[in-house]
Amino acid sequence: MIDSHLFKIANPDSIAIFGASNNFMSMGTSVLSSIQALGFKGPIYPVHPKEKSVLGLTAYPSVEALPEVPDLAVIVLPTRIVVETMDACGKKGIRHAIVVSGGFGESGETGVAMQQQLKETAAIHGIRFLGPNCIGAVNPHHHFNATFLPYGQKPGFIGMASQSGSFITQMFDYLALFGLGFSTGFSVGNEADTDIVDCMEYLARCPHTRVIGLYIESIRRGDAFIHAARRISPVKPIVAYYAGGTDAGRRAGFSHTGSLAGPDRVYDGVFRQGGIVRASSIEELFDFCWSLGTFPMPAGKRVLVQTHSGGPGAVAADACDRAGLTLPPLSDKTRSALAKYLPHTASMNNPVDLTFTRDPRDYTSAIPRLLVADENTDAVIMYMLQPPGSVRRAVEAMGFTGDDAVEAVRAYMDERSREMAGFILASEKPFVGFAYATGENRFVRGLYDAGVPVLPSPNRAARALWAMVEYVRLRKKRMNSGSL
Amino acid sequence: MIDSHLFKIANPDSIAIFGASNNFMSMGTSVLSSIQALGFKGPIYPVHPKEKSVLGLTAYPSVEALPEVPDLAVIVLPTRIVVETMDACGKKGIRHAIVVSGGFGESGETGVAMQQQLKETAAIHGIRFLGPNCIGAVNPHHHFNATFLPYGQKPGFIGMASQSGSFITQMFDYLALFGLGFSTGFSVGNEADTDIVDCMEYLARCPHTRVIGLYIESIRRGDAFIHAARRISPVKPIVAYYAGGTDAGRRAGFSHTGSLAGPDRVYDGVFRQGGIVRASSIEELFDFCWSLGTFPMPAGKRVLVQTHSGGPGAVAADACDRAGLTLPPLSDKTRSALAKYLPHTASMNNPVDLTFTRDPRDYTSAIPRLLVADENTDAVIMYMLQPPGSVRRAVEAMGFTGDDAVEAVRAYMDERSREMAGFILASEKPFVGFAYATGENRFVRGLYDAGVPVLPSPNRAARALWAMVEYVRLRKKRMNSGSL
Repeated sequence: MIDSHLFKIANPDSIAIFGASNNFMSMGTSVLSSIQALGFKGPIYPVHPKEKSVLGLTAYPSVEALPEVPDLAVIVLPTRIVVETMDACGKKGIRHAIVVSGGFGESGETGVAMQQQLKETAAIHGIRFLGPNCIGAVNPHHHFNATFLPYGQKPGFIGMASQSGSFITQMFDYLALFGLGFSTGFSVGNEADTDIVDCMEYLARCPHTRVIGLYIESIRRGDAFIHAARRISPVKPIVAYYAGGTDAGRRAGFSHTGSLAGPDRVYDGVFRQGGIVRASSIEELFDFCWSLGTFPMPAGKRVLVQTHSGGPGAVAADACDRAGLTLPPLSDKTRSALAKYLPHTASMNNPVDLTFTRDPRDYTSAIPRLLVADENTDAVIMYMLQPPGSVRRAVEAMGFTGDDAVEAVRAYMDERSREMAGFILASEKPFVGFAYATGENRFVRGLYDAGVPVLPSPNRAARALWAMVEYVRLRKKRMNSGSL
Repeated sequence: MIDSHLFKIANPDSIAIFGASNNFMSMGTSVLSSIQALGFKGPIYPVHPKEKSVLGLTAYPSVEALPEVPDLAVIVLPTRIVVETMDACGKKGIRHAIVVSGGFGESGETGVAMQQQLKETAAIHGIRFLGPNCIGAVNPHHHFNATFLPYGQKPGFIGMASQSGSFITQMFDYLALFGLGFSTGFSVGNEADTDIVDCMEYLARCPHTRVIGLYIESIRRGDAFIHAARRISPVKPIVAYYAGGTDAGRRAGFSHTGSLAGPDRVYDGVFRQGGIVRASSIEELFDFCWSLGTFPMPAGKRVLVQTHSGGPGAVAADACDRAGLTLPPLSDKTRSALAKYLPHTASMNNPVDLTFTRDPRDYTSAIPRLLVADENTDAVIMYMLQPPGSVRRAVEAMGFTGDDAVEAVRAYMDERSREMAGFILASEKPFVGFAYATGENRFVRGLYDAGVPVLPSPNRAARALWAMVEYVRLRKKRMNSGSL
């Protein structure tokens, strides 16, 4: 139980839903389907003027007719009847709502007036709500998904507050690719009652949330935002993407949620003051959440690069340099310990380019262990390629054929990823993998499934490590300022 | 038949291979496996001192013993016997070789001396060769893959010359994800005889190559490089990634191929003078090849953004602005033509945010057709999301269940992607799709399979369009200079 009105919005024990019917094309029906699909544990009460039953649930002709006072009302109705529905909910005793319906503040003068009415009606009854013009909320830890799209993966650790509902729902599949998911996601819509600051405060206290992601088109309460961020960021990392930095982005955001954004550099300052790490794309937003939510924090910005291929090593080195990381030489101790694993073609510079290893298993066990222990480094970035084609040939060389070969490839890949995952998750320094392959590669998939980040390119790996270095820098600065 | 020594290296009619055996762990065996796996049509002659048969092929004890003079020698032997093997090949009359073996110019003084010997020996016999210290060459149009890894996809249109073999072979699976492949790929290694300029010249004339990709750690013949690029780039786009731009990248490249790179800004100038579009990452290198090799060139830098989701639209607008593209307003003609497709929640600004469409098919047929015809725009960037979850619900709404529903979802997705692909491939303006989903989404996969780029994020879509705008700009500049 978190002391926030968002607790009941994200963890309701019972739900009334308005706008769901047996017409599958309606948005309300989609939301109800999502709630059912994730196996919500409490009672769900569809309210419908005509239907006796909606998606197999008993429907009620009005909110008055409900057998109990539900924790939450989810409203997906035509704009013109939202205010009266909110009023009826209030009279029934409902105190929390999600208003998905649009046509309010984002839709000209009439809409603005209607939004004001909605706020006042809610306030009279003491109702706190999310929206309007939002896409709902999802809390897979509570089997609760009141959004348009089904949530298909396991619960995650990314707490997200977004001024675009798309970056909640349309990211379900994207995050699933990497074995990631949301702890709780809020689409804040027009922020008539609940804004992104409220969500940050809630997510800061949510035990399932290890890192907070924000998608921002404009901040309405600047001071409150900075204060909250300054309080939260030293204990839980916050990552933000800001879309209004350019003229075109700003105009697009304005027509989207009707709020005015500020210049890029102002937001840069706001984020810095708040100790927030800024991402330059949506992919980066989630890459940063992945690394900040998984790895231990680095003590500094020195990184060793491990590779068996010169090109990816050189690109990783280049990317590290551009990201402001430094590549120290190996310590003498590491050099001598490494020697026995290296063929004559290998390089003991940084990147450490193995070219190949006599025993391919050394690449994923002995060597990374030695590198990460090097006293000169704060982190390792490793090229995690295990091409199935060459593993297949290796097992064929051992005499396996047909299905047995397929099985042996699987077993080898799984053993390698288990070995690496155990080591990385226990490491006291961040150990950031990259590959150009993603989940279609069984080795990479095994690491994802174990909760280990493998970034899809050296550039993204270098930036993900930078995010951690930057987070630590901002936190130190904050602590040194004495105002923590 | 292309008048270049690389023709026989990439299109041999017969091959002698040195270093392949029945030991599957040896690199030579891997190369032979790859050649066989792609179904090479001509005779393959393994040369092995002891084995009578190698991977099911008759083996020969020496090059002298071969029944004919093969077009190409592929040498994957220990360093110390490479020179004598080259000599023997020359005596037999072989005139083309790929030297995969390392331990030459990249390995200190002895190696440098040995490389000189190798060059001289080849020169005496008039042998032209690729390498040493390379990973081979691949030409899937000729069923020829003399590299370590199997080539599993159909032949493509990207001609690549790379100073890292990894960015040939380790990209096979990566490119396959997007339905892409190489026309011909060369790993140039130490460039003792054949360098990246030779490869550019060859690829310029290769009919299967629509765009040339270069991975560069250092350019050895600066003048020749610029001259070749200036001649080629106006007729065939060239994209380059340069890894030596930072100190760390430069050092990494040096230990990799033993060549010295120059400062970033020098390379910027070289690329600009050559009319080459510079990519900032390996992903971008291939994104740019994809767009430049597929779309018609834009007349200018004005772009309309089509979306049904505010957030992705705002991010796309922001990304376009950062990429130097402009977002014009819709023409009056387009506005009136669009009106009948738009719900009241939609925005006719740019991005054109449909929010939803009454008939979802309009989003992928009537609307994009109207937008791309707008006289104010040179291109369209479109958010191509078709979430399987919502399509599934729509078909269930039509009464489909179980396997029938699965089939109906597939049929719908396939119809949508066919419709879009036909329209995009016939469009006279570039129409660049993006989605956060990739090939695991059937709609996106359908577009890939039809040869239509769908970039994995709005940022990458904006940059891919920028690459085309930049290419056109460089080409115009070149033409205006009158020196074409």
